[in-house]
Amino acid sequence: MKKPVFILNGPNLNLLGRREPHIYGTQTLKQVESLCEAKAITLGVTIDFRQTNHEGVLIDWVQEAMDSASALILNAAGYTHTSIALHDALKALSIPVIEVHLSDPAQRESFRHVSYVGMAATQTIAGLGARGYELALESAASLV
Amino acid sequence: MKKPVFILNGPNLNLLGRREPHIYGTQTLKQVESLCEAKAITLGVTIDFRQTNHEGVLIDWVQEAMDSASALILNAAGYTHTSIALHDALKALSIPVIEVHLSDPAQRESFRHVSYVGMAATQTIAGLGARGYELALESAASLV
Amino acid sequence: MKKPVFILNGPNLNLLGRREPHIYGTQTLKQVESLCEAKAITLGVTIDFRQTNHEGVLIDWVQEAMDSASALILNAAGYTHTSIALHDALKALSIPVIEVHLSDPAQRESFRHVSYVGMAATQTIAGLGARGYELALESAASLV
Amino acid sequence: MKKPVFILNGPNLNLLGRREPHIYGTQTLKQVESLCEAKAITLGVTIDFRQTNHEGVLIDWVQEAMDSASALILNAAGYTHTSIALHDALKALSIPVIEVHLSDPAQRESFRHVSYVGMAATQTIAGLGARGYELALESAASLV
Amino acid sequence: MKKPVFILNGPNLNLLGRREPHIYGTQTLKQVESLCEAKAITLGVTIDFRQTNHEGVLIDWVQEAMDSASALILNAAGYTHTSIALHDALKALSIPVIEVHLSDPAQRESFRHVSYVGMAATQTIAGLGARGYELALESAASLV
Amino acid sequence: MKKPVFILNGPNLNLLGRREPHIYGTQTLKQVESLCEAKAITLGVTIDFRQTNHEGVLIDWVQEAMDSASALILNAAGYTHTSIALHDALKALSIPVIEVHLSDPAQRESFRHVSYVGMAATQTIAGLGARGYELALESAASLV
Amino acid sequence: MKKPVFILNGPNLNLLGRREPHIYGTQTLKQVESLCEAKAITLGVTIDFRQTNHEGVLIDWVQEAMDSASALILNAAGYTHTSIALHDALKALSIPVIEVHLSDPAQRESFRHVSYVGMAATQTIAGLGARGYELALESAASLV
Amino acid sequence: MKKPVFILNGPNLNLLGRREPHIYGTQTLKQVESLCEAKAITLGVTIDFRQTNHEGVLIDWVQEAMDSASALILNAAGYTHTSIALHDALKALSIPVIEVHLSDPAQRESFRHVSYVGMAATQTIAGLGARGYELALESAASLV
Amino acid sequence: MKKPVFILNGPNLNLLGRREPHIYGTQTLKQVESLCEAKAITLGVTIDFRQTNHEGVLIDWVQEAMDSASALILNAAGYTHTSIALHDALKALSIPVIEVHLSDPAQRESFRHVSYVGMAATQTIAGLGARGYELALESAASLV
Amino acid sequence: MKKPVFILNGPNLNLLGRREPHIYGTQTLKQVESLCEAKAITLGVTIDFRQTNHEGVLIDWVQEAMDSASALILNAAGYTHTSIALHDALKALSIPVIEVHLSDPAQRESFRHVSYVGMAATQTIAGLGARGYELALESAASLV
Amino acid sequence: MKKPVFILNGPNLNLLGRREPHIYGTQTLKQVESLCEAKAITLGVTIDFRQTNHEGVLIDWVQEAMDSASALILNAAGYTHTSIALHDALKALSIPVIEVHLSDPAQRESFRHVSYVGMAATQTIAGLGARGYELALESAASLV
Amino acid sequence: MKKPVFILNGPNLNLLGRREPHIYGTQTLKQVESLCEAKAITLGVTIDFRQTNHEGVLIDWVQEAMDSASALILNAAGYTHTSIALHDALKALSIPVIEVHLSDPAQRESFRHVSYVGMAATQTIAGLGARGYELALESAASLV
Repeated sequence: MKKPVFILNGPNLNLLGRREPHIYGTQTLKQVESLCEAKAITLGVTIDFRQTNHEGVLIDWVQEAMDSASALILNAAGYTHTSIALHDALKALSIPVIEVHLSDPAQRESFRHVSYVGMAATQTIAGLGARGYELALESAASLV
Repeated sequence: MKKPVFILNGPNLNLLGRREPHIYGTQTLKQVESLCEAKAITLGVTIDFRQTNHEGVLIDWVQEAMDSASALILNAAGYTHTSIALHDALKALSIPVIEVHLSDPAQRESFRHVSYVGMAATQTIAGLGARGYELALESAASLV
Repeated sequence: MKKPVFILNGPNLNLLGRREPHIYGTQTLKQVESLCEAKAITLGVTIDFRQTNHEGVLIDWVQEAMDSASALILNAAGYTHTSIALHDALKALSIPVIEVHLSDPAQRESFRHVSYVGMAATQTIAGLGARGYELALESAASLV
Repeated sequence: MKKPVFILNGPNLNLLGRREPHIYGTQTLKQVESLCEAKAITLGVTIDFRQTNHEGVLIDWVQEAMDSASALILNAAGYTHTSIALHDALKALSIPVIEVHLSDPAQRESFRHVSYVGMAATQTIAGLGARGYELALESAASLV
Repeated sequence: MKKPVFILNGPNLNLLGRREPHIYGTQTLKQVESLCEAKAITLGVTIDFRQTNHEGVLIDWVQEAMDSASALILNAAGYTHTSIALHDALKALSIPVIEVHLSDPAQRESFRHVSYVGMAATQTIAGLGARGYELALESAASLV
Repeated sequence: MKKPVFILNGPNLNLLGRREPHIYGTQTLKQVESLCEAKAITLGVTIDFRQTNHEGVLIDWVQEAMDSASALILNAAGYTHTSIALHDALKALSIPVIEVHLSDPAQRESFRHVSYVGMAATQTIAGLGARGYELALESAASLV
Repeated sequence: MKKPVFILNGPNLNLLGRREPHIYGTQTLKQVESLCEAKAITLGVTIDFRQTNHEGVLIDWVQEAMDSASALILNAAGYTHTSIALHDALKALSIPVIEVHLSDPAQRESFRHVSYVGMAATQTIAGLGARGYELALESAASLV
Repeated sequence: MKKPVFILNGPNLNLLGRREPHIYGTQTLKQVESLCEAKAITLGVTIDFRQTNHEGVLIDWVQEAMDSASALILNAAGYTHTSIALHDALKALSIPVIEVHLSDPAQRESFRHVSYVGMAATQTIAGLGARGYELALESAASLV
Repeated sequence: MKKPVFILNGPNLNLLGRREPHIYGTQTLKQVESLCEAKAITLGVTIDFRQTNHEGVLIDWVQEAMDSASALILNAAGYTHTSIALHDALKALSIPVIEVHLSDPAQRESFRHVSYVGMAATQTIAGLGARGYELALESAASLV
Repeated sequence: MKKPVFILNGPNLNLLGRREPHIYGTQTLKQVESLCEAKAITLGVTIDFRQTNHEGVLIDWVQEAMDSASALILNAAGYTHTSIALHDALKALSIPVIEVHLSDPAQRESFRHVSYVGMAATQTIAGLGARGYELALESAASLV
Repeated sequence: MKKPVFILNGPNLNLLGRREPHIYGTQTLKQVESLCEAKAITLGVTIDFRQTNHEGVLIDWVQEAMDSASALILNAAGYTHTSIALHDALKALSIPVIEVHLSDPAQRESFRHVSYVGMAATQTIAGLGARGYELALESAASLV
Repeated sequence: MKKPVFILNGPNLNLLGRREPHIYGTQTLKQVESLCEAKAITLGVTIDFRQTNHEGVLIDWVQEAMDSASALILNAAGYTHTSIALHDALKALSIPVIEVHLSDPAQRESFRHVSYVGMAATQTIAGLGARGYELALESAASLV
């Protein structure tokens, strides 16, 4: 049986739809997950969709992906710009890693212009909202 | 029934009274909590006083405050200067947020001069020791 | 009749397949255009696919897109990181603008970490090779 | 007879209520003074409340406080971020010094993130509006 | 009975032997622990060897070392360069603290050249692989 | 009766004609004032022309302009690059503010390339010598 | 017969009136040209008014001005801040050079605070909209 | 028949002999070309000597050199320090590339101390005036 | 009759003997003046010794020195590092200017390492306490 | 016969025991050498222990080590942070190189945080005093 | 009799042919000297070819060149980027000075991008290997 | 018998009178020494006046001063700004150390604005030419 694509979401993404809607939109993370589930069926892949506010849990999951996932889609949110530990975990992976952001960090505060995730992930999709997850999934499916 | 004021304490504040007393004083966190309890009674508010060393737990609690607290008093200690994730959580709140520090970071190492918490919190009280918590509580009470 | 999606390519992209293949792959720009044509038919849109080494021509084309395109997909290559003039042209557009890069600039030299295009474009797809153009086209089609 | 608490206000604070009300509120400096007077009576202390646009005058007053004040509350406004001379004057004091700001500089332009006053004052209260003066007075009273 | 030496390992060190072997070697963390156990017996000390991906857990353990350890050997991995909170915890200790790194951060990316751990730990051993742990243990034993 | 246009001159401009003539020319400030007087008559406006070496006095005058001037022409000389307090005073004005410099700061030392006045004034005329004052007056007259 | 004053306009100025009107106003470049024509007649000079999006063309024209123009008025727009090549061309001129900007770059993004044109041009007029062109023309006429 | 050595000259070099002679000397570009022609005959090579003010044309020519030149001598003048696009074009070449400058940029303004051309070209000759072209030609001839 | 040597003292120097004696010593400014008077008699010169906390007054006095002093000895204290206006005033002088500091700024905080006074004064004597004033006076006497 | 381990000491280490004992301890370099001799006998290796204040001599010795030493232990003291020439010499070695420091530079002035030696040496032991030399010798012995 | 051309080589160049051959090639310094001797005969000049690892010796030799050399060719290697003292010595010379590097520092680590030698030498030849010495000699001969 | 005052001169000071006389004057170092001898007799002290171009020799001499000198006057010239090793040697002294410069580094290139000597020496005299040595000697004599 094929390994699922991991779709990991970092801090505050559980607030989607409630938090700064002028930046992040009104869709909830549950709805994003449903969109991904639907897209996954179309693509013939399975997904494992999770969220956490804990940097350490995110690293645990990235490590789990080494053996248990066929590809990794990661929206590390605020940890994107500060976590060298997460960067190191991503460097250990040999499966495809796709960085996703709902909004485009390049258009926001300068402290969001450094991406430790981006230095380790070979693909980035930013600013497409929930649609970015679907495209990432398509890309992941084509690479697996 | 009125929602409590959350008073959240970040890493190493549980060591208060034991850790670098020339900077942080000899009072324990338990004693700070008692002072806050006493002050809360005077002000006619209730408080929920907590401490954690975990950035993720701090973010969980800030999110919990969205629905369960009338105001948030936050001493994020070391995470103040490094956590964009915590900053993002605070931006999601519409209740009053008051940043508190026992000592004044402006007088310490330069790596303590950036405050991601301060960029999200509209009020800051620093360098007043345990007294700063009481004043923060007064301010919170006046805003609720 | 519907306006086409402009797909504009900047300096040296005409060398695709010949230039630093360990970074940019072996596909030619002609092949990327064919992939886009095929995808466009699927999506029911038309495209106008161009390349130039001239910053001024790129700006002329971006301006032309104001009236003649339904969306703009832009791989500005080397001008991405240096052209404020191009940035200003993009700011004048009200149609969707999608920034595309074959490789992920975040993984390359630090002088590629600033993106004047990214500060003006709301969407970015990087590191997916020619596949990134197709996804950008899907995103453009869904927005038009 | 006890020495008064000096409350010194720097440049443009005389415009309070007229200047950029979305940042500084609609209260006048006269009203802030009245609030402080009322609070002082409650606390059993006297105050000496002044304002000047002149850096030199501010320094003269800080020096005067050495012998004539029991504590110093200082809102140096624009000089906060540029005056090493004021910093040096504050370093000469052995009475308590409390820095006050109506809005929180950490939330404004980056040139307001350096505080020469903060490097010399052990206490800071920012972003609480006129209420910050009252709390500063409480803190001063408790220290005297 | 004597307190053990704490040997604390940070994020991704559980992947040792699997992760970027050209940098970290092929030895597993289990094997490093065995080497330390053997060395400890020779030295007549006991050890408590742990690993976590969680910054908060690492801080909990450092605090636990205050009362329960005779010395602390710490390889904080990615948190070395980003955690002011961990730095603050280390500053609270009065037992010997020895920073260990398998590879030498000075030879890697520039974002690994800042060490918040190093600013708090008085001893550093880097680039000696698993052998560095043994030497750290010798040093700890000689200091206890 | 119409309010005058304030023309305020900062430190050392009283030395005009004596000070570094290769940079500032040989005209005296008195002569510049006469040129402005003549131009004002032509334009049907009155002027109030002043000079001071004191930052505080300059701020006092800018504040006075709030109620007493129809427009403000300001050559803050050395304070242009260092005075946040002056910047704040200018932000309080709703009348037109025109920044004037005899020489062009962009051609001089790098410490003259930051302009706190320029961040608050919407118009700048630099490098035109005394003629710049006349043009500023024309612009002011057309805006009043 | 006298040589004309060159008035050269850089990238995106052809969009005037259509592009970001909250910054650049609603006047078209054609209207600015007409204002200049009218002013030129008043002043007894002729003008040569041009626009291009191409850095190279702008440099060609600046070189042409060496022999064919009596003065140069230049709004290099986005190239102002990035073109050392344009700077070098201006340094070769011995006729008067006047830098013009519709809005004041000092009030915009920090990447607009460096001016390679300003380092080579002795006069700058910024933030006066189309009126700035007229004043520049007056200054040019007075210098020719 | 052997391919020629391309000698490409960037912006403002057509002004040689007229522009800032204290920096660039009084020789014209035509004379430099003649010196190169004479030297080429001695060396038994042919040359193709060109000049343009346009960055895009320079890139077109560098690309043309891929198939049509045996070596490339490049004086990119002002684009040396700003053009990542030119840098990328040079990286695509496998023939020898020699960077030439009439004066030594290391002795001029600091904005001339970064060289995107130098990061891509393996050889640099600077400060030898027209003689530098001859030496570059000798080096090119010896490498072909 | 010969003009006096001006000895001008900036902010907080009136506190000498009271302010941070571990840095500035226990001598009062009055005593420094007496030492200078005594030394002046020996040298056959007269002095004019003043102190002010006001930047503007300091500039007024420096300007006064143009016509009324034979030399200028200046301890600008905190204004040394922040006052471009003072720098500009000093540049207007043709008499000898000697910068004096009681302690050596190079040994103190990094914000005291920039000296706008030093960029304009050709002589500096630092760290010799009151003795530095005497030596400055000797140097001034030898130059007059 | 086996080649010795070179133990090279840089500037001011001959003052050990006399110089800043609160940082470097009271042991003399002679005593450190004796400890190393004793340890060497235990390990069955020979050592060649030297000290110099001259950067050039240090480079001469490092070059000598290429042919005459089995390993190199280097405490370059002040040259650690400034000598690219020493760095280049170390890069030429293929024997093991171990950097040693008595105190930990990470805990001292920021100008000691850059290590040109560390960029060339694969192993670093810092802050262990003379004990660091012994451990370095053990490590060297295990590598030879 | 004519003075010789000094050809001075700095630290580690004696290792040429042994040290990092992928950067510096396999030719020895002796061979470079022979090439220079042969070239010198052709040009009718004499040379004095030396190498040292000592910064002070290099300065002694540069000073010796003032009176004893007709021109100076200098490859200061690692001291190029760190020696202000060497820079000052070069500034004292009035004979031609030509900086030579075997490889092109612009293509190496960023700490090799500053050249104190280059700020004092008017000519630079880099990246041409031993051939660069010959060209430098030709240039020197043409200038003498 | 009393120990002499050491007067140590760094690189290129032996060229005094020949080197860049517009900066350093026309006096030779021999003449400076004679002035110092004469002054020493007046003051009743002896001196030991030396010069070297070698950093290591300078450090040797500073160390020699520990036991053999009553005070140290040091003009380290170019090493002032680059030598941490010299800084460390100075920190080991307990006798008075006076830094002397002929010209004022604050008025020269920015790379001369950092002083490692100044961070270790408590007194600085700069810009007074040879006279500075005499004043330094007076200060030394008064301190011994």
